[in-house]
Amino acid sequence: MTTMTHTAEIHRTVRVDLDARSYDILIGPGLVGTAGTEIAARLPGIRVAVVTDETVAGFHLRRLLDSLEAAGIDAVSIVLPPGEPTKSYRHLETVVEAVIAARLERGDAVLALGGGVVGDLAGFVAGIVRRGMRFIQMPTSLLAQVDSSVGGKTGINSPQGKNLVGVFHQPSLVMADTDVLDTLSRREFAAGYAEVVKYGLIDRPGLFDWLETNRAGIFAGGPERAEAIAESCRAKAEVVAADEREDGRRALLNLGHTFGHALEAACKYDSARLVHGEGVAIGMALAHRFSVRLGLCSGQDAVRAERHLEAAGLPTRISDIPGGTFSVDELMRAIGQDKKVSRGSLTFILTRGIGKAFIAREVEPEAVEAFLADELAG
Amino acid sequence: MTTMTHTAEIHRTVRVDLDARSYDILIGPGLVGTAGTEIAARLPGIRVAVVTDETVAGFHLRRLLDSLEAAGIDAVSIVLPPGEPTKSYRHLETVVEAVIAARLERGDAVLALGGGVVGDLAGFVAGIVRRGMRFIQMPTSLLAQVDSSVGGKTGINSPQGKNLVGVFHQPSLVMADTDVLDTLSRREFAAGYAEVVKYGLIDRPGLFDWLETNRAGIFAGGPERAEAIAESCRAKAEVVAADEREDGRRALLNLGHTFGHALEAACKYDSARLVHGEGVAIGMALAHRFSVRLGLCSGQDAVRAERHLEAAGLPTRISDIPGGTFSVDELMRAIGQDKKVSRGSLTFILTRGIGKAFIAREVEPEAVEAFLADELAG
Repeated sequence: MTTMTHTAEIHRTVRVDLDARSYDILIGPGLVGTAGTEIAARLPGIRVAVVTDETVAGFHLRRLLDSLEAAGIDAVSIVLPPGEPTKSYRHLETVVEAVIAARLERGDAVLALGGGVVGDLAGFVAGIVRRGMRFIQMPTSLLAQVDSSVGGKTGINSPQGKNLVGVFHQPSLVMADTDVLDTLSRREFAAGYAEVVKYGLIDRPGLFDWLETNRAGIFAGGPERAEAIAESCRAKAEVVAADEREDGRRALLNLGHTFGHALEAACKYDSARLVHGEGVAIGMALAHRFSVRLGLCSGQDAVRAERHLEAAGLPTRISDIPGGTFSVDELMRAIGQDKKVSRGSLTFILTRGIGKAFIAREVEPEAVEAFLADELAG
Repeated sequence: MTTMTHTAEIHRTVRVDLDARSYDILIGPGLVGTAGTEIAARLPGIRVAVVTDETVAGFHLRRLLDSLEAAGIDAVSIVLPPGEPTKSYRHLETVVEAVIAARLERGDAVLALGGGVVGDLAGFVAGIVRRGMRFIQMPTSLLAQVDSSVGGKTGINSPQGKNLVGVFHQPSLVMADTDVLDTLSRREFAAGYAEVVKYGLIDRPGLFDWLETNRAGIFAGGPERAEAIAESCRAKAEVVAADEREDGRRALLNLGHTFGHALEAACKYDSARLVHGEGVAIGMALAHRFSVRLGLCSGQDAVRAERHLEAAGLPTRISDIPGGTFSVDELMRAIGQDKKVSRGSLTFILTRGIGKAFIAREVEPEAVEAFLADELAG
């Protein structure tokens, strides 16, 4: 009991409100070591299959397994190769079969210990074994903590496009240990930070102001870090609660993502050239500049967004991507295959200024094409 | 408009009530030929990927594609090998990739034209491409019309057990053409009929009485056939509406299924020895006899259930399965792997008489073992 009171004091809790599928996100230091207690208190009698990758396992798996064991939770672990290619049919099958072989039942849980790749794959596994098991997220990258672990999107990549195969499957519990972020490279941290900035740019101008002042503390691991993560989770949870299956408002979360995904695809998902958060950073800068060009947004606001991303060490122009340039055609093709297209017309998230993003349906492909041509030329 | 009034006259409609996911089941003759009109009226502008198998394609695909074309519906078709092995990871991947390659969007539909195998696989594909597309069922076996096409269960088989991988994904529309059942063998028809009998045995004693009188007409293709299908769909829809995700009452639909699945597994899913409906028929007879043994049900009711199944040409004893016998151990092992087990104890659907089935949790494995030993000996 002392332990629980103690952990309750040091972590923040954000509630995602989805009726019967509501769940808590715990945010704070040391959660890998107290995970067993947190799980046992909420889901008594549960058994767990921990899914992780070799890199994360080296840092945190032993400690997590000890914590589960200490709380009397029976666990098996499944360790995958790190990296985006793990989000494949082959690894999906491997993990599904391992979970079935462990004889876990519907009430038991798949626990994802890792970044977005592990979380997306493990969540998909939890969504389809016995037509849906419980799912617990322990995101270990900033990107996963502020974005992919919240909202229930899971999946793998198709050879024809990223994240084209998956399900919506909400976790029962998310635990974001802020200490584990110390093992990230600065580049990885910055990539996650792009999604934090995104919540400010969408509809939280106050958050954006606060980030302009507190960026250094967030990167250095001060108390601002947990606050930034909690505020990001709150922002995402609010949108997800309003639109769980992405029929409407949830599309706002794609600010920067249509351009970002196209750039990632054009780079063939080569993380040496571009990682997801960097694609989103460039995509958000492009969305602002495109909005300026369409007369929707002031040039001043676009520059302010761009400056902040640059200060965080993020790219903001297509030419910032190393390893060669792209043709307008290949980017347009990649945009056409984006899974959020609707009936052939293009849907973009555009903006009227900092914190004033909106869903623009039926954007003319010709306007996008002309804009990209100028960006690539300039 | 004349056409629509006409079709509305000749088919029956059963509504499955699931709030935002509610849908209609149309039941009647000639629906393959009027499918295009029915779909266009309900889902204007939709594009369709028809998934079917070689056998069914030979009988009905051309007519369905003509009907879609006449209604202005853009369609591609994906033809799979027939049989249970098609419910595999490999074919799942093939169909998912074909649907993505056809550039269908979330609002478009996968249409399953076939029996349970095609419906389960195609429904799973619809559930996971772009995290969920529309799904339309045109079941072509009696089993699929009265059971698997209603209720949203989809999936494939794992090497470790049947239907262990899948999702709940409700169709937008089900069309059961009663004419197509004329292409079934008597054995296939009887296997589907086992599930019709099941609804009577669960909680519709009036239906069971009616079946005792009208079995011949149902098999011969009289008007009783559509009535039996509609009543079965109503029975299933009622249970599904009350318990969409099988947390409680829906388990009643597993009457005969725990034993049935174990027998199918013990036969290694060799359809020459046993098909699903036959396993269910034996399983229901076993559930009744087991209930008699436990003092729950009168011997008279068990005999009445058994007689009706036998009259329909269905097996009712383990020894009715050709090709050798089984050990108690292998059947118990197969029961332990059943995906409806809960926390190690066994859940069975037992009965207090015709139409009085109930969920018995925590059945002692020893009692099942002793019962099976006697059944195998006798």
